[in-house]
Amino acid sequence: MARTIQSLERAAAVLRLLAGGERRLGLSDIASSIGLAKGTAHGLLRTLQQEGFVEQDAGSGKYQLGAELLRLGNSYLDVHELRARALVWTDDLARSSGESAYVGVLHQRGVLIVHHVFRPDDSRQVLEVGAMQPLHSTALGKVLAAFDPVAHNEAMEAGLGAITDATVVDPAAFDRGLAEVRTRGWAADVGETWDGVASVAAPILDRRRMPVGAVGITGAVERMLEGSAPRPRLVAAVRDCARSVSRDLGSGRF
Amino acid sequence: MARTIQSLERAAAVLRLLAGGERRLGLSDIASSIGLAKGTAHGLLRTLQQEGFVEQDAGSGKYQLGAELLRLGNSYLDVHELRARALVWTDDLARSSGESAYVGVLHQRGVLIVHHVFRPDDSRQVLEVGAMQPLHSTALGKVLAAFDPVAHNEAMEAGLGAITDATVVDPAAFDRGLAEVRTRGWAADVGETWDGVASVAAPILDRRRMPVGAVGITGAVERMLEGSAPRPRLVAAVRDCARSVSRDLGSGRF
Repeated sequence: MARTIQSLERAAAVLRLLAGGERRLGLSDIASSIGLAKGTAHGLLRTLQQEGFVEQDAGSGKYQLGAELLRLGNSYLDVHELRARALVWTDDLARSSGESAYVGVLHQRGVLIVHHVFRPDDSRQVLEVGAMQPLHSTALGKVLAAFDPVAHNEAMEAGLGAITDATVVDPAAFDRGLAEVRTRGWAADVGETWDGVASVAAPILDRRRMPVGAVGITGAVERMLEGSAPRPRLVAAVRDCARSVSRDLGSGRF
Repeated sequence: MARTIQSLERAAAVLRLLAGGERRLGLSDIASSIGLAKGTAHGLLRTLQQEGFVEQDAGSGKYQLGAELLRLGNSYLDVHELRARALVWTDDLARSSGESAYVGVLHQRGVLIVHHVFRPDDSRQVLEVGAMQPLHSTALGKVLAAFDPVAHNEAMEAGLGAITDATVVDPAAFDRGLAEVRTRGWAADVGETWDGVASVAAPILDRRRMPVGAVGITGAVERMLEGSAPRPRLVAAVRDCARSVSRDLGSGRF
């Protein structure tokens, strides 16, 4: 009863393969990437296709992810209490800060964006719900790594890769940064993930005061910073939002 | 080699179960709903949990959909050429019409929303990407049913259920409506899905001139209609958008 089911693990591997890199792959490529016989891979793909998780391009015969994943992903958002509680507060945060607001949770070795409120201006922006961000270089990720030991482990296992010249790649320096995050209660990313872009984030705590996610804003350094540090007004807005969502999740006020 | 894999089909059934109705279910409920022994269901859930497709609530022990579905659903959007081509044109459509714009594709027995541009005002709006809409009562759905025989079959099999007093539930009347949609090249829904709300949609054709989706706008009848029919200006904007996306997908101009 404690066994896991091999065909399911293999199917998940196929989906992960199609979600990264090439995204449209033929049967042989899939079979060899996962290390399966072609017949075995074909049986998996047939079933995944029948269930809507995979689609086959009529022209090339190549496989790609299927629409059922989008439908189920949307259902995941509906069931997500954190996101439901964050809807109103992050709207207010985007409006008061004038920047994009995000809610992220730990997923695998990164931050999964579960909610995104566009910056309140007329610019074209791409919705990032469902996208992954690095744990070690973003404000959301640092908050998770600072307050959740599991997230810290995942960050270290993912490795502190240099994304920009400003990314902190030294483990000791990274841990000193996280200690500071815990002390002051919020994290910042100044050009460590995107050149010229800064973010500020704070933890969301549940009724057991466990960190269940992080909320933050992201914007151009020219607007986000005063000197080299985030504007206190913006930090206060992010922390107010995090406290409000936490309170809605049942976390005590004190 | 032509067989499908039973454990995968069962896993898909578990995910569909968690995506509808209750959304948080215990092991016994899941096992009895799918018609499995508890031990078998537990093995499935363990594996789905290990792969991130299912999460278990720490407090109640109940199961719900997992974050990996959101990540994969987002990857599906990235791979979706129709959506990529539609991004710019639907932005323009929402701006020029002043209404919400949607792109939908046939999925199972409904319309899956793969792109949604908010109405360009300051009102609070909920993103509907990943949501399903009925085939028989929405403008997007009628376009798909009119131009794609598979969609027509799915609509008939889903059944023409009454959603509002205005929903067309008679199959002969429905088919007459679709013939008109084919003749004039666009479809409307006036209060047939939501009271007081109208929508207009037109087909998106690929390089083989096959209907691969539909694009449309949705808004209050007071803004959308002139008398009892959609404003010609709005119909023209939707059809212009559909033509532009089709052309970007390689469909000929004539």
